[in-house]
Amino acid sequence: MKLYTFSLAPNGQRVTAFLKEKNISIESQEINVREGEQFKEPFQSMNPFNCIPFLKLSDGSIISESVSICKYLEEELYPNPSLFGSTPKEKAYIDMWNRRLELDALSPLGYAARNKVAFFADRVLAGTRNDIKQSQDIVERGKQMADLLFNRINPHLEKNKFICGEKFSIADITGHSIFVTCERLKFEISDNFQNVLKWKSTLDKRECFKNE
Amino acid sequence: MKLYTFSLAPNGQRVTAFLKEKNISIESQEINVREGEQFKEPFQSMNPFNCIPFLKLSDGSIISESVSICKYLEEELYPNPSLFGSTPKEKAYIDMWNRRLELDALSPLGYAARNKVAFFADRVLAGTRNDIKQSQDIVERGKQMADLLFNRINPHLEKNKFICGEKFSIADITGHSIFVTCERLKFEISDNFQNVLKWKSTLDKRECFKNE
Repeated sequence: MKLYTFSLAPNGQRVTAFLKEKNISIESQEINVREGEQFKEPFQSMNPFNCIPFLKLSDGSIISESVSICKYLEEELYPNPSLFGSTPKEKAYIDMWNRRLELDALSPLGYAARNKVAFFADRVLAGTRNDIKQSQDIVERGKQMADLLFNRINPHLEKNKFICGEKFSIADITGHSIFVTCERLKFEISDNFQNVLKWKSTLDKRECFKNE
Repeated sequence: MKLYTFSLAPNGQRVTAFLKEKNISIESQEINVREGEQFKEPFQSMNPFNCIPFLKLSDGSIISESVSICKYLEEELYPNPSLFGSTPKEKAYIDMWNRRLELDALSPLGYAARNKVAFFADRVLAGTRNDIKQSQDIVERGKQMADLLFNRINPHLEKNKFICGEKFSIADITGHSIFVTCERLKFEISDNFQNVLKWKSTLDKRECFKNE
């Protein structure tokens, strides 16, 4: 089993945080996606989506997508501590929160970054190089969607230390990635969202997110 | 246990297809989201994200997000036939494909619909009513992302009947939703993607998608 990743990329960092939180060490290899290594063989054939991270299993098969990789590692090899939940109900609850955070904020913020940051000018869609133009509308929409999410989760975080309650989960790793992306975009989190800011502060102190 | 849904909405239809495929019947109640019923109590408190579908469990707790609902039903109550996979490896593989289809096409196409169709003019973000303006850039980006996905999966579908191989899975339900959304948007699927069109045709014939 071997992980192919790029430690400086947000989705690479999500898997890194998961591994640190669970105290797992696995063989890994860096693919410098900034320099386009993912378009070269053998990586092109291993993941035709040209994104990192991806995991090569001992039988040669490939699992890509950061959350799918983490789930595989937890279910197949490293059940404890569980970051995806133990019962079907707990799993569904964590999955729901992870989806809300990804679909309603992290993903739109990722689009915002690719449409704002000059470095991404020739790579507006992840895993591509082409001349699709950056769009200010998409940057603005990312901010609007993140603000909407913060507004929705602020009351929920009044009484919850983490997004799913007292226990840290994969959804908190997604949450941390939202905050990191906001910082990169210079999107300020409004003082109206005090509970969101408290959650951010809790996550910032957590060991698994240090030294990124 | 009770399902709150709106049968005419795409995410409601995904859960309907899942239930039909597995031959499950559960109590359900329609919430007319077109007329804003989701903003009224008790629905507002049950799901502050103001979206359908959501599932109320017997202990009163709520699971929203279509895929999380389906996963809960499969893991807790109705394991067979499995649409999420049986082994950790199979589960991770299906999860990876479902994520690729959702994040790279279904979600961007959903944004495109909300930014194109006149009906959505005051509800550009799901579960809201406000004056955020529709954006032609976001419509165009949805088309570009769907085309990129089709280009990536076309070779993979050469030898695979369904997106994960010989077995129908939750990722095919996501796939069908992509095709339905393309039709609503009048986004044509290029003849260059013959294997994608073959997959679409296979799905269109499947019983669980009929009479929507």
